Amino acid sequence: MSTDSEDVTTSVSAGLGRVQLQFTPSGTDVRVPPGVTVFDAASWNGLAIDSTCGGHGTCKKCKIQIVEGEVPVSRLDIRAFSSEQLADGWRLACVARANGNLKVDVPPLSTRPKAATVGVGRQVILRPAVQKRYVELEEPTLHDQRPDIDRLRDAMDDLEFEADLSVLKTLPTILRKSDFKVTAVVVDEHLIAVEAGDTTAFNHALAFDLGTTTVVATLLDLTTGTPMAVKSMLNKQQPFGADVISRISATMMDPQAQGLMQVAGLATLNELTAEVCAEANIDPNTIYETAIAGNATMVQILLGVDPEPVGVAPFITAAQQWPTFTAHEVGVEILPSARVFLFPAFGAYVGGDIVAGVLATGMDRDKRVRLLIDVGTNCEIVLSSGDTILTTAAPAGPAFEAASIACGMRAADGAIEVVQINKGELKLGTIGDVEPVGICGSGLVDAVYALHQIGLLDDSGRFVADEVAAEIAPTLNERLVTREAGDRIFILHGTVEDPTVYLSQRDVRELQFAKASIATGWRLLLEEAGLTDDDVQQVLLAGSFGSYLSPTSAIGIGLVPKLPVMRIVSAGNVAGEGAKMVLLSSTERSGATTLLDEVDYVELSDRPDFNDKFFLELALPS
Amino acid sequence: MSTDSEDVTTSVSAGLGRVQLQFTPSGTDVRVPPGVTVFDAASWNGLAIDSTCGGHGTCKKCKIQIVEGEVPVSRLDIRAFSSEQLADGWRLACVARANGNLKVDVPPLSTRPKAATVGVGRQVILRPAVQKRYVELEEPTLHDQRPDIDRLRDAMDDLEFEADLSVLKTLPTILRKSDFKVTAVVVDEHLIAVEAGDTTAFNHALAFDLGTTTVVATLLDLTTGTPMAVKSMLNKQQPFGADVISRISATMMDPQAQGLMQVAGLATLNELTAEVCAEANIDPNTIYETAIAGNATMVQILLGVDPEPVGVAPFITAAQQWPTFTAHEVGVEILPSARVFLFPAFGAYVGGDIVAGVLATGMDRDKRVRLLIDVGTNCEIVLSSGDTILTTAAPAGPAFEAASIACGMRAADGAIEVVQINKGELKLGTIGDVEPVGICGSGLVDAVYALHQIGLLDDSGRFVADEVAAEIAPTLNERLVTREAGDRIFILHGTVEDPTVYLSQRDVRELQFAKASIATGWRLLLEEAGLTDDDVQQVLLAGSFGSYLSPTSAIGIGLVPKLPVMRIVSAGNVAGEGAKMVLLSSTERSGATTLLDEVDYVELSDRPDFNDKFFLELALPS
Repeated sequence: MSTDSEDVTTSVSAGLGRVQLQFTPSGTDVRVPPGVTVFDAASWNGLAIDSTCGGHGTCKKCKIQIVEGEVPVSRLDIRAFSSEQLADGWRLACVARANGNLKVDVPPLSTRPKAATVGVGRQVILRPAVQKRYVELEEPTLHDQRPDIDRLRDAMDDLEFEADLSVLKTLPTILRKSDFKVTAVVVDEHLIAVEAGDTTAFNHALAFDLGTTTVVATLLDLTTGTPMAVKSMLNKQQPFGADVISRISATMMDPQAQGLMQVAGLATLNELTAEVCAEANIDPNTIYETAIAGNATMVQILLGVDPEPVGVAPFITAAQQWPTFTAHEVGVEILPSARVFLFPAFGAYVGGDIVAGVLATGMDRDKRVRLLIDVGTNCEIVLSSGDTILTTAAPAGPAFEAASIACGMRAADGAIEVVQINKGELKLGTIGDVEPVGICGSGLVDAVYALHQIGLLDDSGRFVADEVAAEIAPTLNERLVTREAGDRIFILHGTVEDPTVYLSQRDVRELQFAKASIATGWRLLLEEAGLTDDDVQQVLLAGSFGSYLSPTSAIGIGLVPKLPVMRIVSAGNVAGEGAKMVLLSSTERSGATTLLDEVDYVELSDRPDFNDKFFLELALPS
Repeated sequence: MSTDSEDVTTSVSAGLGRVQLQFTPSGTDVRVPPGVTVFDAASWNGLAIDSTCGGHGTCKKCKIQIVEGEVPVSRLDIRAFSSEQLADGWRLACVARANGNLKVDVPPLSTRPKAATVGVGRQVILRPAVQKRYVELEEPTLHDQRPDIDRLRDAMDDLEFEADLSVLKTLPTILRKSDFKVTAVVVDEHLIAVEAGDTTAFNHALAFDLGTTTVVATLLDLTTGTPMAVKSMLNKQQPFGADVISRISATMMDPQAQGLMQVAGLATLNELTAEVCAEANIDPNTIYETAIAGNATMVQILLGVDPEPVGVAPFITAAQQWPTFTAHEVGVEILPSARVFLFPAFGAYVGGDIVAGVLATGMDRDKRVRLLIDVGTNCEIVLSSGDTILTTAAPAGPAFEAASIACGMRAADGAIEVVQINKGELKLGTIGDVEPVGICGSGLVDAVYALHQIGLLDDSGRFVADEVAAEIAPTLNERLVTREAGDRIFILHGTVEDPTVYLSQRDVRELQFAKASIATGWRLLLEEAGLTDDDVQQVLLAGSFGSYLSPTSAIGIGLVPKLPVMRIVSAGNVAGEGAKMVLLSSTERSGATTLLDEVDYVELSDRPDFNDKFFLELALPS
């Protein structure tokens, strides 16, 4: 809008108001929102700066030298450096805020900071919100009558906290029975436990990916950042419906359903908790924090909040961000005073699982144009382009879960997951290498792609006439038959008389609708960002479906933009990875909240051009 | 210590680092801690400044003119005033912080602020922590998909709050059933309830004076600041002992006792709650806040914290200040998410009831030298002298509650509460005007004073010999008899053969010990402050005992300093008044916390000179 070229330049170089930090000698070059500390900027990008306190401003070890740019001298800097050093640009990285572009020299490490690789190649410096501190207190006398809690507070005067009632209740007793030698557990600004003796070696957190279908729990050792046990199981809410819409419908039909689903969801979390604790042989009361990444419906049901407004237009959640609750309040069976972090949501249909996914993939810290697609009944799509992050939800329907497919089945033993046609020969890959009994989502995509490739399906997705089939695919045309009702099927397994697994014309249509919905979604996001298919540099496919899907087939049917197969990346369980990250690093956690301001949610359902675009996407790319 | 006279002057005029505010045209002259807003300084002293938001920074009505002194221009001032007005010293009182001496002109009121008179002549401007706000929200659409909580938040953007889980659980349902017309209840930074429709007329709080002996509940209407019902009853913990020491001992004898006392204490609070609600005909769920003033032992037992360390040297409490709890956490049967304010304590034996008392008497806002004495088994003493506030506890023993007295009884029907000797004639005043059956504390003090006055007790507190008695009190000497065991008694009621109520030599000794303990307490405080008896300008006697005690007798036996009788003031239930104040005004509440920094606790039990002074105080003043 501005006609002043200088203004435009400034605005472009600043991106979303970001500042640039160049680190030497590593050569790392990062862009962060203004106000972020140099320590955080480095930490976020896996660059280690010396520190024993983890950036809490107490160890004074995170010394760096500002080579270019301005960072004011802080109160802490004065204690850490001589005036000559200050004049030479020496600062403590944990209090040095980058409010403009900086060039920063990082001295070699004297201590090896603990870091963990999580998410999609994200390197996270260990800095959990949970801090355990062993202290030996002086015993009170008539000359030192400090109340118990103040005595403890004074021994940890670098931490600010308020004590939970549960801690205050037992504090006098625990202090006296342990000769005033105790371990305090602080999470953010809360003292959540005081334990007798030195228990700093036992410090655990629990990450949940609370999916509509599957729930995954990862137990973390916060002293090392490593996972101790991972368990998954089907969400016990399954009997109430396969997807969020059927679960919400259940609550509208039956007043009991909401409560029963809450109980079922909690039972799932708690059974997993018991399993990971048993496997790692730890006491659940040494789990001080849990992070839960789930979609808006799963989270509302878990908390006992009516999900109905999420399910019906105009699709409203109770909250975008949730306060921190206690495990006791939520009902998770770990230390009752442990804190529960619930991921915030971008919108009613782009929930906390996707926020966790964006965090885990580092989409907000990358200049490339990337798409994150979580394929499912409700498909979430995120487009990042360095300056802009856009997200939307596309109602894909159950085709990818093969629920509405004639011979469809879940990705279990006997499901055809791979379909290839090579030199006129049909090849099937079946899960468990057993006799095929059905077809799952990835097999469906493969089949439609392969049949379209050889010409048995035309661009409109219709099976070609028998005579055409006989001509172009003489080794396969017998599998294409017309049944009594007039519908045509392609037999994948079995005989013409007894076709055990087949693809019907209707199945192809179902898949076309699903892929058109998703393709319309990312195409509209690209349009919003002023980009085209050709600009996309990477597609991340999230979730377990993403790991089974053949990139070639996905491109082939137009589910994802046409780009080199290598750039279609299976990102795995990014929701679970994001949940781990926020437990390992409170810096990453604040990043999750920051994302809400950085990401724009695009509602598709009220776009006048949605239907037109959708019909264009129905065709199979020729 | 300083030899520089200028330094000394500065330090004296600054008092405890206070600044002086002169208000015109009222002429009110107040001293407050630096940093206090002009609005608060005025409000604390009952001086009204125009405001409809109660000093929350939203109405921009609290316009004042700084005539002398400096107050920086705030962001809010810029919106409220022209640059000429700002240059003329116009500021908003609610953001104008007094960091130096100021002279402030207050324009005449355009609205009449609500205020309540509570405590000892304290005028409190109504500004409760509880705020109820009726809002009519716009219904969501596809173009306005704000989450429910954000929609509510946006409608009250002058308040910052975090929502309780209990609120979030019901929010979607309540909004939709009430057509998005709701009343929000915010206490400090917490959204604790959302109610359908406009319920702003129902806004209640509950003040508790949680005494070891008696518990008093006052139900307040926060819309007017007036009490709606007051009820009191004996603390149901009585069976475990009459005073805090016996209650603590009970927990040390019997592991069950602590839990049973907690239940009994809660039962007392809840029975009173039910009674005041019934009398005022209100729903307990419209009580959004409660304040509890109690001694450290009562508070710890109520919360389920082991009180043993409070009871044995070196006398340590679990906490001096308590976080804000919910009614549900504590077990008070009002709205479960209502907030519970527990008064902080000065020390193990000068508890929250005394902090409340100091607040109610305004001892911290008065330049006079004043003593607040709460007479009981444990006697709390506070000395204020404008610059210094000192406090201590004196172990007076049970004499004043007449528990260790031969014919002692509680202040109930049949108790002799007044004893006078007039022209040789003994006059008794009995509670309920019935036949005397015993003597209570105030009667005991009267009796000892009267007998010493006419000479039947000498200065050492010994009954004089029969022959001396016959000479100086010929009408009374027959009442002074020697019993078989050799002990001498003075008969108050009954005959020599059947003395129903009498005073024994041992009773006189008990009283001497008790009064010596208290007198040593205030005398040591005066000494610490560099003052003498003659400097004391007022003595406030707190509690119900204070209202029965004859000032003349109290002076006469040396229980209080010798000053004109008019200056011995019965201050009533100052703990309960303080509890009301913090509910009516969040400004007063912060005052309670500020007191902790301003008041110095003096521990008597480790003073080497305590015993010497104590023996000096045993004598009756001649």
